[in-house]
Amino acid sequence: MKNIYSIGIGLIGGSLAKDIKALRPDVIIHGISRKDSTLEEALALNLIDKKATLDDLKNADLVIISIPVDATVKLLPTILDLIPETGLVVDAGSTKVDICKVVENHPKRRNFLAMHPIAGTEHSGPAAAISGLFQGKTNIVCEVEKTTFKLQEKALKLFSDIGMRIRYMNPEAHDKHIAYVSHLSHISSFMLGKTVIDKERNERDIFDMAGSGFASTVRLAKSSPAMWTPIFKQNKANVIETLEEYINNLSHFKELMKQDDFEAIYKEMESTNYIKDILNGIH
Amino acid sequence: MKNIYSIGIGLIGGSLAKDIKALRPDVIIHGISRKDSTLEEALALNLIDKKATLDDLKNADLVIISIPVDATVKLLPTILDLIPETGLVVDAGSTKVDICKVVENHPKRRNFLAMHPIAGTEHSGPAAAISGLFQGKTNIVCEVEKTTFKLQEKALKLFSDIGMRIRYMNPEAHDKHIAYVSHLSHISSFMLGKTVIDKERNERDIFDMAGSGFASTVRLAKSSPAMWTPIFKQNKANVIETLEEYINNLSHFKELMKQDDFEAIYKEMESTNYIKDILNGIH
Repeated sequence: MKNIYSIGIGLIGGSLAKDIKALRPDVIIHGISRKDSTLEEALALNLIDKKATLDDLKNADLVIISIPVDATVKLLPTILDLIPETGLVVDAGSTKVDICKVVENHPKRRNFLAMHPIAGTEHSGPAAAISGLFQGKTNIVCEVEKTTFKLQEKALKLFSDIGMRIRYMNPEAHDKHIAYVSHLSHISSFMLGKTVIDKERNERDIFDMAGSGFASTVRLAKSSPAMWTPIFKQNKANVIETLEEYINNLSHFKELMKQDDFEAIYKEMESTNYIKDILNGIH
Repeated sequence: MKNIYSIGIGLIGGSLAKDIKALRPDVIIHGISRKDSTLEEALALNLIDKKATLDDLKNADLVIISIPVDATVKLLPTILDLIPETGLVVDAGSTKVDICKVVENHPKRRNFLAMHPIAGTEHSGPAAAISGLFQGKTNIVCEVEKTTFKLQEKALKLFSDIGMRIRYMNPEAHDKHIAYVSHLSHISSFMLGKTVIDKERNERDIFDMAGSGFASTVRLAKSSPAMWTPIFKQNKANVIETLEEYINNLSHFKELMKQDDFEAIYKEMESTNYIKDILNGIH
């Protein structure tokens, strides 16, 4: 694996490039982006060695796609057309059903590995790239059996080497479960931010009263709408289901308060405290 | 200020004791708690110098109350009865209307200062006490004009010295605004945790898929139900109002998704991204 092409060099693509370069100094990272200014920034930050275009993909040993999931669905078939028989394409998208579906009958399907590295921050763009982001994190790999064994082996070795544990799952299970543990958190955070901002418009200075608890709970509301809108679109049915359950739980809590049933309120919280044990396993 | 009595020596009381002792080594911190085991733990952790009981309050220069807000409402009048004319009582409760109300006609009202230091973590108990918790944080002081000037001056100097900035507010404004920036965050976090835990019961292992974003958003769901139930009870009307607005915003987001209006979804998130600038000011 000598020539790696990184399509999208923001938080995920840039952080992957950083870790891969640190691990394998002989590798050449070629950056591809819609915007030349992004490439220039990535060069200046030393995330990539060279600028490239899609036409250069004929020389690729590995292509890493880290762009919004709607753009991945659009570009992926073309990228597979362009790479050599010996090349592998992986994507890092937060949805897997639509992405796997768009290449299910592609003649080079076996040159594609569908992945979702569960790692990130609320920041975006090349400047958001950080070293060691993937250390100890989970990389979900879908439909592993559809990828040429030797190619998957090389890729999984690389992602293990940068610290990830690999978990296998089918695209449907991935999209269903990730709606709960990731997509819903983003919406809850965005809407919490909105609720408080709306209030702030009428009542000045309430943010002076906000502490670290509020900051933690709305942190994800800083996330990129360009990245998240297509995720919600592609995972619409699952996300709506989680939202309905979340709204029902909130409404139930509100009803208990209206009925002055604070014993039940106590129990609701007590039974959720169990999240402590769960979170101990998450970084 | 030589003899300080700390009623409740958990996260807040314990952290205050730590900072005050570091700043003023000559002060003696006396601990009072319902449970002797808590006092023993606080002694072992060096949070307090001595164990005490309510009867000892006759020697108090300063009493700091950091217990659940329902217990504060119950105990505060008795505490005021017991302290000397030269003593001051402050509380650190997350609600202010009921606490101020219960002593409005107390003969020693001028020996009480109502406070809310906006600081904390999701942990509780003496072992949760940490140094420097209040550095750079806001201390909201209510009805300052009702406290003897010399006593408020001493107390505010002490809380400034441990790094807090003081903000003045009436109890009604405090309870209304804190519902948005603190109480609502706790409910959103608890109910998010519940939604995902309920799902986990049927679908195993989904927490393996959770990343740091989820961890951050549900962090507050580790908070103490004993501390939070009486807060929601005392601030019922305001909390229900914020919950209704939050649920409306979530339902609107869900409707936009159902209508495939992802342009509006994008705008919802984009306009909330402005939270970035706001959070820059919060630790």
